[in-house]
Amino acid sequence: MHDSETFLAAAQDLLGERGLTHDPDLVGPWLTDWRGRFTGRALALASPESTAEVAALVALCTEHRVGIVPQGGNSGMSGGATPDASGSQLLLSLRRMNAIRSLDASAHQAVCEAGVILEALHHAAEAEGLRFPLSLGGKGSATVGGLISTNAGGTQVLRHGSMRALVLGLEAVLPDGSVLDQLTPLKKDNRGFDLKQLLIGSEGTLGIVTAATLKLEPAIAARSLIWAGLPSLAAARALLLHCQAGEADALEGFEVMPRHCLDTVLRFLPGARAPLAGAHAWHALIELDADAAGADALAARAEALLAEAFERGLVEDAAIAQNEAQAGAFWALRENIAPAERAAGPAVQHDVSVPLESVPGFVEAATAAVEARWPGHRAVAFGHLGDGNVHFHVIAPPGVDGLPWQETEGKAISRFVHDLVAQWRGSISAEHGIGQLKRDELRRLGDPVALAVMASVKHALDPFGIMNPGKLL
Amino acid sequence: MHDSETFLAAAQDLLGERGLTHDPDLVGPWLTDWRGRFTGRALALASPESTAEVAALVALCTEHRVGIVPQGGNSGMSGGATPDASGSQLLLSLRRMNAIRSLDASAHQAVCEAGVILEALHHAAEAEGLRFPLSLGGKGSATVGGLISTNAGGTQVLRHGSMRALVLGLEAVLPDGSVLDQLTPLKKDNRGFDLKQLLIGSEGTLGIVTAATLKLEPAIAARSLIWAGLPSLAAARALLLHCQAGEADALEGFEVMPRHCLDTVLRFLPGARAPLAGAHAWHALIELDADAAGADALAARAEALLAEAFERGLVEDAAIAQNEAQAGAFWALRENIAPAERAAGPAVQHDVSVPLESVPGFVEAATAAVEARWPGHRAVAFGHLGDGNVHFHVIAPPGVDGLPWQETEGKAISRFVHDLVAQWRGSISAEHGIGQLKRDELRRLGDPVALAVMASVKHALDPFGIMNPGKLL
Repeated sequence: MHDSETFLAAAQDLLGERGLTHDPDLVGPWLTDWRGRFTGRALALASPESTAEVAALVALCTEHRVGIVPQGGNSGMSGGATPDASGSQLLLSLRRMNAIRSLDASAHQAVCEAGVILEALHHAAEAEGLRFPLSLGGKGSATVGGLISTNAGGTQVLRHGSMRALVLGLEAVLPDGSVLDQLTPLKKDNRGFDLKQLLIGSEGTLGIVTAATLKLEPAIAARSLIWAGLPSLAAARALLLHCQAGEADALEGFEVMPRHCLDTVLRFLPGARAPLAGAHAWHALIELDADAAGADALAARAEALLAEAFERGLVEDAAIAQNEAQAGAFWALRENIAPAERAAGPAVQHDVSVPLESVPGFVEAATAAVEARWPGHRAVAFGHLGDGNVHFHVIAPPGVDGLPWQETEGKAISRFVHDLVAQWRGSISAEHGIGQLKRDELRRLGDPVALAVMASVKHALDPFGIMNPGKLL
Repeated sequence: MHDSETFLAAAQDLLGERGLTHDPDLVGPWLTDWRGRFTGRALALASPESTAEVAALVALCTEHRVGIVPQGGNSGMSGGATPDASGSQLLLSLRRMNAIRSLDASAHQAVCEAGVILEALHHAAEAEGLRFPLSLGGKGSATVGGLISTNAGGTQVLRHGSMRALVLGLEAVLPDGSVLDQLTPLKKDNRGFDLKQLLIGSEGTLGIVTAATLKLEPAIAARSLIWAGLPSLAAARALLLHCQAGEADALEGFEVMPRHCLDTVLRFLPGARAPLAGAHAWHALIELDADAAGADALAARAEALLAEAFERGLVEDAAIAQNEAQAGAFWALRENIAPAERAAGPAVQHDVSVPLESVPGFVEAATAAVEARWPGHRAVAFGHLGDGNVHFHVIAPPGVDGLPWQETEGKAISRFVHDLVAQWRGSISAEHGIGQLKRDELRRLGDPVALAVMASVKHALDPFGIMNPGKLL
């Protein structure tokens, strides 16, 4: 037998029929990332059902030097869960490990296996009068393991932080097959390096997250949604500071979009209506939330906050959603920017962050620079102003053929945008991770000192390089 | 010249006269830790004045394989900043690097050099209507660098987190002399391993923190202090949950102490008075805070919270401080537990944490077990209930000779307590770090998987073992 056959036979013995498959119909759907940018091949698809099986499998992979590509819901944005083209890597799905091992409502904690789907966690928390305060578009497929490995963000980071802030404990299988059990949540623990933090956001290159203890919050009992029309992004930042000064504890989200994005969504979304009558250069969507204790007072607080903003000249116009249906309609305008733009024509996307106070300056400078250098193109920035994180999209001129444009101008534009981000001391990956999509750009623009440390740590923990090879580093 | 003389000559050239000294009068005070448990010797005392000087000095130390012991205010609790007895290690003080490089009041951020003293940061923030929400007994000497390297805690962790939660950016000199510059605060940044988190709490074993960007909060405009008498620690936890459900956003601190601690303080502190008339097995000190926006409503909210606690039978008795003087008197009772106990006689101290919900069970079980095994001894636990972190002290019987008791029974008791903590899945160092004090206990009781990963990372980043040798690992 070839070595790969020996390996596969041993893996089959270990995992049983359900746990390892070569069936192209079963494996195929998981070989392409969901944006369709990367397609790979795999030795097989392994689906262990327990941490012990993952540990034994990883030890086997180490013995045979087989690369492992961990995968959750396959809804990542950077190709981080797609194997390479060699066919020599094992695709390791965590989807069968989908148990919520425990949910302690009084402690506000849930212990979830890596394969728990985000929406399932939302429902389990809701059933106990709680919530898990992180959500994103792929919530119906994204898994806890993937969210942790990519340190996922979303629209609630402003108040609750990224995934990193919500992980109280972690269990992971390390490259040598040992199990790091740090599931017990200790609010204070100063026994050396925080290995949990090292694994969060490491994209499966240091180990495989198999379970986590996650933080839950009281359910939302009331929310107030404000839509504001603004003359500039600088005005949006002033409004954000106003909201943070007055209602920091209630401020759940602060999203911005320029007029062009709103117009694109209004053309795309059947029945959609502009929240405000007039035209504004920028729009902000602001959510204030309260749990049961603060529910009654919230509407009055939102009105007072907005009244003061009018008084101080911080908004051109604004509206408060009058009911949940209208609140849903406001959010739909924000959530449909990406699909509306995809439908409108080819574009290149950049998930970037800069220091909070630099966002208006960066967006203005980058928009002007891109549009001057590529005439006919349009740059738009929208997203999470409160996190310093905008999605900076550059839209091809009308009539351009998408594919060749992506490969030529598109790539040149991305490099140009990333150069600007580096000059502004920002990040070329605010929330989507590096994966295989941005690996070369990270090498080109990343701090050589930080990259050297990462390489050292990677080599120390994974000397044979079997953990998600070709990703991130 | 001997190699150490060559090294010292080169270091003197680099740092100048003020930057390197052998004068025993100048070096001596820094060779003993502040609790007086460890005394070492040093090759010299280096006091660089810039990050560039630290980097050059570390490179020189690497070249000559000279061990470096970084030191801030020398107020650590675990001997982490004291050199060993060999006299071959260089004591590296960061105290000259005490500039607040910038303070951006609108962004709520300050960039501080490692040697900035905590109290100086408090004053600088106050001057801008802000505060740095971490404080502890040693604030007059503890430095930003030391606080970060030990991931310091204190009485405000409940609401604001440990140092880890307040560090937005970091600059550090790595063992090869390179400078890791991650000072720019990015709220979202998913470009690989979070090296900042790896350095925080690593006790100088991976690098030397030279500066940090720290998070500031709005100044406190009003506070309400409640003193509650309770029948048990379980009742204190029920009261804590009540406070968190009703006033999570205002709850700044929740400290507990048993009757014995209060009595000891009342005997120790001239003029001190018990806040409540009756006798209670346990006492809780609860602080609610508000910034300017919430100041007017705070007193009424505290009263309502307490009224409901009475109604639900959660307290035996309680009082609200009527003015700042009384609030100060309440806090003085808490802050004087440690000095009062030191004055009362010999004791061994343990800074431990367990999962929040286990604190009452752990304290009850550990107290009973220790007092049964060591008749005549008394165990008391007090501290940060809201963080799962109690200081568990075991007091020697009256009349015992302190020193021999410390060395025999004292050490046996500590091992016994640490064993219990491990059984309860807790931490033998909640907030004081490992240093040299608990290194052997960490080796004995720590998770071998975690220890192996720590050793790998340490070796990868510091192959010659020059960074704070003999500490933590």
